[in-house]
Amino acid sequence: MYSADTKDSVGLVTPQRAEFPEGLTLACGRRLPKFELVYETYGELNADASNAVLVCHALSGHHHAAGYHNETDRKPGWWESCIGPGKAIDTNHFFVVSLNNLGGCHGSTGPLSVDPDSGEEYGPDFPPLRARDWVHSQAMLADRLGIPSWAAVIGGSLGGMQAMRWALEYPDRVRHCVVIAAALKLSAQNIAFNEIARQAITSDPAFHGGRYRQHQAVPRDGLAIARMVGHITYLSDDAMADRFGRDLRSGNLALGSDEGVEFQVQSYLRHQGSTFSESFDANTYILMTRALDYFDLAREYGDDPVAAFAEASASFLVMSFSTDWRFSPSRSREIVDALLAAGKSVSYAEIQADQGHDAFLLPIPRYVEVFSAYMQRVRGA
Amino acid sequence: MYSADTKDSVGLVTPQRAEFPEGLTLACGRRLPKFELVYETYGELNADASNAVLVCHALSGHHHAAGYHNETDRKPGWWESCIGPGKAIDTNHFFVVSLNNLGGCHGSTGPLSVDPDSGEEYGPDFPPLRARDWVHSQAMLADRLGIPSWAAVIGGSLGGMQAMRWALEYPDRVRHCVVIAAALKLSAQNIAFNEIARQAITSDPAFHGGRYRQHQAVPRDGLAIARMVGHITYLSDDAMADRFGRDLRSGNLALGSDEGVEFQVQSYLRHQGSTFSESFDANTYILMTRALDYFDLAREYGDDPVAAFAEASASFLVMSFSTDWRFSPSRSREIVDALLAAGKSVSYAEIQADQGHDAFLLPIPRYVEVFSAYMQRVRGA
Repeated sequence: MYSADTKDSVGLVTPQRAEFPEGLTLACGRRLPKFELVYETYGELNADASNAVLVCHALSGHHHAAGYHNETDRKPGWWESCIGPGKAIDTNHFFVVSLNNLGGCHGSTGPLSVDPDSGEEYGPDFPPLRARDWVHSQAMLADRLGIPSWAAVIGGSLGGMQAMRWALEYPDRVRHCVVIAAALKLSAQNIAFNEIARQAITSDPAFHGGRYRQHQAVPRDGLAIARMVGHITYLSDDAMADRFGRDLRSGNLALGSDEGVEFQVQSYLRHQGSTFSESFDANTYILMTRALDYFDLAREYGDDPVAAFAEASASFLVMSFSTDWRFSPSRSREIVDALLAAGKSVSYAEIQADQGHDAFLLPIPRYVEVFSAYMQRVRGA
Repeated sequence: MYSADTKDSVGLVTPQRAEFPEGLTLACGRRLPKFELVYETYGELNADASNAVLVCHALSGHHHAAGYHNETDRKPGWWESCIGPGKAIDTNHFFVVSLNNLGGCHGSTGPLSVDPDSGEEYGPDFPPLRARDWVHSQAMLADRLGIPSWAAVIGGSLGGMQAMRWALEYPDRVRHCVVIAAALKLSAQNIAFNEIARQAITSDPAFHGGRYRQHQAVPRDGLAIARMVGHITYLSDDAMADRFGRDLRSGNLALGSDEGVEFQVQSYLRHQGSTFSESFDANTYILMTRALDYFDLAREYGDDPVAAFAEASASFLVMSFSTDWRFSPSRSREIVDALLAAGKSVSYAEIQADQGHDAFLLPIPRYVEVFSAYMQRVRGA
């Protein structure tokens, strides 16, 4: 809940828009004739524009990373735990930029936007995106904001993949790269979970081949199932056990009847799924999970991540979480090993945490401590 | 593929039916006025009926555990790796009984059967089942077959839960109990995956509240997604990586376009899901996953598994697989610890295997070795 007294929050923030009438040619070869990005900033850009930090969001994230949009907001931005005065990304020192990625459904140009060529919403015809498309559009935003290079590009999960791609695409524009709970590429299991999510969405009759809005429909059931898959795989087994155990929300197992029996975890998942299906666009979800699946940092470098990272000039902080089974510590160690072999400066911390992949969003003391210490170093650099 | 020369298979087998016009009162309090069980037997029952072994099936299993139904069968029964002459469950020595559980969709009385009270198919009105209902109906089948007690009751996954329940419900009728890749009860994560599967089925418009057959419909998409969830969670991350990696079935990632790009794992999952949706009944799937969710061996024993196992007279073999993350070795060790604390005879083996939960169906040398050695002991007893 917002409070004017809260000293460790950036407080009230207002999203801004940047228009790019010059458009962008995408990795797939297609061209967006024009586009817009919605973004927020926290803190002040200093005189020589040397204190700017870019925060890249994950699958279901957006530009609202910290603070509150109005005084009645119950929840702050998605990374309030790490962005604010005195926090790991300290807004007393850094100018933080957070945007909704191209293809998103929170205000930036995406499937919900009108295609200027056809005059209709893009919908399922929005071009496929790669992480590098996000990086290129983010670089255009940096130009617009007068930021020649980032003190740090930072992200967790899919955000970490963008941060790594930044370090290869624009080595001169990234001084530090913070890669949290990410991987060089997805595993078959990761892809498989994303495939279930997409199947759930596309097989929902309300999906109408992606043209649900023309049918005044929303593939709610499919989106809800997609979100449930996400939730389970982002939490550790232990975290679910701690939070829900086998507690019942209603009914009595001993009576033996199924009628009215429901576990807490079922009820929670249904609620999360239902909420998500009201707030997230199905075509965006498909677009984002595909970008995740196809991400492969070293593909153009002979499948050699050492060769890939040879392009980078940044120093790296890599962090992982002990119970994250979707992007496990061993995947982060692959990043670290490649960086070391490429002769790069890299710090690595595996954080003991029970919360699984979701840990990167939480104020876990050791995590915040390592992250803060590294960001102090970024300030000093 | 069937071959008359195959010496290590039980060869051609014919399912049999047993009718129970006396019916059964279920754990939920409702009564089946009559029921039928479909079963197969392999090997010969000896004169004093002391060599009988019951094999209990898992979620999507059935009575056809070994051998072939006809000479053109391409695939043998689901546990061909462990049942047959000279195999772990050696049909030269044991008389093996394998049945389709009550509530199943492979011939035993279940949602596809006609309710004698209404004259209509049970469909979604089939009573909820507990593992103990299966055990009681299996005991009635044992009576019918003239088997006063089992040399061993054996099962993997949900089958292992039935085996444990047998040891508590009929301590005098189970001399050995083999519990493979099971748990005392499901975790919140287990329940959550089952909930996704059920949501996928029930939200499929073709489900019609479970009355799809009255609408000449099949909730194919929902069943396919349910099966995909199962497949991913029964395989280890490594097993998926070994089998599929990030190989493409079609398309070219470097071109950047999504059109026609498909990973092998996507194609495999869709095929498996589609095949399953043609062969498995949706109401049965819901019924079986609920029985799994509600299983809790120690519920009536003050939530104390030691008190529960105090009821048992059998000796136990417990086995788990190193990469099984759905029923992990730590869950098996909970069983072993409780058995030891209850002063029972128990052997335990954690098998190093890359295949995840599915390992219990595979001819992994160390697994077969431990299993065979224990079954030798069962013969000697």
